[in-house]
Amino acid sequence: MSASAPAGPEIQRLIELIARLPGLGPRSARRAVLHLLKKRETLMEPLAQALAVAAREVLACEVCGNLDTVQPCSVCAQEGRDGGVICVVEDVSDIWAMERARVFTGRYHVLGGVLSALDGVGPQALNIPRLLERVGGGQVREVILALDANTDGQTTANYLADRLAGTGVSVTRLAHGVPVGGDIDLLDDGTLAAALRLRRGV
Amino acid sequence: MSASAPAGPEIQRLIELIARLPGLGPRSARRAVLHLLKKRETLMEPLAQALAVAAREVLACEVCGNLDTVQPCSVCAQEGRDGGVICVVEDVSDIWAMERARVFTGRYHVLGGVLSALDGVGPQALNIPRLLERVGGGQVREVILALDANTDGQTTANYLADRLAGTGVSVTRLAHGVPVGGDIDLLDDGTLAAALRLRRGV
Repeated sequence: MSASAPAGPEIQRLIELIARLPGLGPRSARRAVLHLLKKRETLMEPLAQALAVAAREVLACEVCGNLDTVQPCSVCAQEGRDGGVICVVEDVSDIWAMERARVFTGRYHVLGGVLSALDGVGPQALNIPRLLERVGGGQVREVILALDANTDGQTTANYLADRLAGTGVSVTRLAHGVPVGGDIDLLDDGTLAAALRLRRGV
Repeated sequence: MSASAPAGPEIQRLIELIARLPGLGPRSARRAVLHLLKKRETLMEPLAQALAVAAREVLACEVCGNLDTVQPCSVCAQEGRDGGVICVVEDVSDIWAMERARVFTGRYHVLGGVLSALDGVGPQALNIPRLLERVGGGQVREVILALDANTDGQTTANYLADRLAGTGVSVTRLAHGVPVGGDIDLLDDGTLAAALRLRRGV
């Protein structure tokens, strides 16, 4: 829409901004904007407000790198979590996933990315010094590298395992295998090979 | 996420609001919020601002029902549009689609919905009196009913055709046929029948 835009520059700008969210394009952004304009008091104004508040108040936790409005973050502040185990993740969304699954009661550490030759991400771009510092504190027994099971994730895990060698902590990774509910005949060869190699007694 | 939410209530509230946009769910909303938090100055703050401005300033055009920040809307304000032809559409998004296609140079009228027995939408819920008023002004030669080609759209078109009978204006509908670029073998029977019935010389 150029000079003949039927909706004015304010709406046009809103569509362009929303279209930049992941998973949305111009078409779904237009639909979202119309929906917002129809739910002005119940959705549009609260959303504007919530965005402004979060943009102003959310910060990275100085301990683990999680995003929250309190310092340290609500996960680090939880009493009763095992400070002897640190789960290293690539991104904040991984913490959210682990917490939704309620399967881990130790501490987290957000790297803020993974090593990537293609994207030119080296160790200095990652939140590694703070991890070594936390491990060096003496309380940590185990570091779980919960990184994606692709090349960059594995490269990063190998690098971190090297850096953590000699600190005396046990360094582990997540298991490979058949996803729960997953179809055997849809699995890729690598997963199937791993699941077979790591088979257990029934 | 309850008491053990890893991200605090501000982020949680933002995720819930964004998940209410059409086409987004909790998963994509979480991804969008993380993206926003990483692009705080270039995306999150401008979006909060744009939402607030649009929520405050956008209003329905008193002439045609389009949404814009000026009164009458920028389409109604355009000189050189043919006031003799009114294209009746269900929603503002239909105006946007027609304007993007640059195929229509007359005026628009937004009904704000269609008649629906299932959803309990009767004629009094639609912006019909204003349409009759505009047609009654004497300048209008033709009313094009550009409504969706489903039951509710057709019911509404029939109802409007009845209401406009006797005003002396010509009432027309969009043609049915094969979509440009469409595969014949993927077409539904109704469209194929219409395209055949309405065939033209080459």
